Amino acid sequence: MSDHQQVIAFQGERGAYSEAAAVIHFGDAIQPLPCVTFEAVFESVESGSANQGIIPVENSLAGSIHRNYDLLLRHDLTIVGEVQTRIAHTLIAMPGVTMDDISRVYSHPQALAQCERSLTTLLPDAERVPAYDTAGSVKMLREGNVQDGAAIASRRAADIYEMTILRDHMEDDAENYTRFLVLGSEADISTEQAKTSIVFSTRNIPGALFKCLAVFALRDIDLTKIESRPLQGKRWEYLFYIDFAGSTRETRCHSALNHLQELTTFFRVLGSYPRGV
Amino acid sequence: MSDHQQVIAFQGERGAYSEAAAVIHFGDAIQPLPCVTFEAVFESVESGSANQGIIPVENSLAGSIHRNYDLLLRHDLTIVGEVQTRIAHTLIAMPGVTMDDISRVYSHPQALAQCERSLTTLLPDAERVPAYDTAGSVKMLREGNVQDGAAIASRRAADIYEMTILRDHMEDDAENYTRFLVLGSEADISTEQAKTSIVFSTRNIPGALFKCLAVFALRDIDLTKIESRPLQGKRWEYLFYIDFAGSTRETRCHSALNHLQELTTFFRVLGSYPRGV
Repeated sequence: MSDHQQVIAFQGERGAYSEAAAVIHFGDAIQPLPCVTFEAVFESVESGSANQGIIPVENSLAGSIHRNYDLLLRHDLTIVGEVQTRIAHTLIAMPGVTMDDISRVYSHPQALAQCERSLTTLLPDAERVPAYDTAGSVKMLREGNVQDGAAIASRRAADIYEMTILRDHMEDDAENYTRFLVLGSEADISTEQAKTSIVFSTRNIPGALFKCLAVFALRDIDLTKIESRPLQGKRWEYLFYIDFAGSTRETRCHSALNHLQELTTFFRVLGSYPRGV
Repeated sequence: MSDHQQVIAFQGERGAYSEAAAVIHFGDAIQPLPCVTFEAVFESVESGSANQGIIPVENSLAGSIHRNYDLLLRHDLTIVGEVQTRIAHTLIAMPGVTMDDISRVYSHPQALAQCERSLTTLLPDAERVPAYDTAGSVKMLREGNVQDGAAIASRRAADIYEMTILRDHMEDDAENYTRFLVLGSEADISTEQAKTSIVFSTRNIPGALFKCLAVFALRDIDLTKIESRPLQGKRWEYLFYIDFAGSTRETRCHSALNHLQELTTFFRVLGSYPRGV
């Protein structure tokens, strides 16, 4: 840890789940830089106004955040870390507000959906109001001094806005995890327990993807994720994003990637980084 | 064509792009059944209130409509057809309204984004107003007799609501195609120019996906699409949706699928159907 506070960019208001993930990764002594959009997170790191950024890429229930896969391609940053964290939703209100006062519950639509059964039990008559984000809903309650509403957000959001937690573990499914990636401008290739993320496209010929996966299988390299996205300008052709266990510094991984480049029309390493736990 | 009009369910208001795709597939003599949600499209076919349904699954610019992949799994319907159609956006207003009158443009956020450059040139000062859907925006202009607004939607929506087309080909990128799937309750396995869609999960072991793709590659079966979605209840494990050229009635495809079932923990054929052109 250095004497200077690292500025870490994330999407959402103070208290967002991304901020909580940043604290897990960097510790408490960060200077948070809330951004309105995911694009602004990338731009903050590129311009140097943040040292690093953190973005969600995948939720274990809802799947990939495809927008961030597209942005990884469009921007020239490097993945330098990974955080996997359990999403525990809390029901938050202004101090003094009780369950009986609540006629509306605000949050991001996905968070409302993930608490649907809990909300039906606790607050069957409360209206669900979709909002821009989770922590932003808490901020809105605080700024508006709202006495008949509650929000679904992180415990951290309740702390930051000095609000009351009416109920924790509102999430219906405890197996609710989100993977975040840490973005930097300089590669920091680790070798211990590393993971590598790449993106490539192939010629549109039978067996092309099979051959690409063979370069890993033939070297016993374990793929942990594959995601496809449309290749702009080529109808029904795709970019493939792959994560695998290993670092580009390892000979077998290095050889696999050289082999892969014989088969691809586009190829880029997005980063090698310590595996998040 | 039979004497009875086929009832075809789709998401959106009359004039939606899905309705236009249904007309390409079934001809003009259909009875359209607009549905508020994609889920309602599946339910209409299951309950028999529609003969068949049509859903978008992929756009060549924006990628897959993942929600519909999840619904294909959750419902017990069969894919019986495919439609691929170019999306041509038109700028639509009430009769008599001219370009100079327009201070707001309504449409689905994705349609607004796909016309951003055209809108900036034609209507630099008009506010963009995100709406529930494209055809629904046209309907809203008609029902509200809105004299200072326009909508981005299909030519068909302009016809249905008797509106004026101020400009066609508003889309910035002409390579804007959407793939739709036709859903029925009874399989109608074709063999000519067929495509088959399947979904499966594998054990989470190194090389598992590679082995699954091998059953196709070893038989020279061409994969046209692979999509991964989270496997509920198993963190960071996935369902794979694959489309391939060929029908389950062909021996080599039948053998490939038998082979695949030796490797999978879950497997389902979603349908064999004539390839859309």
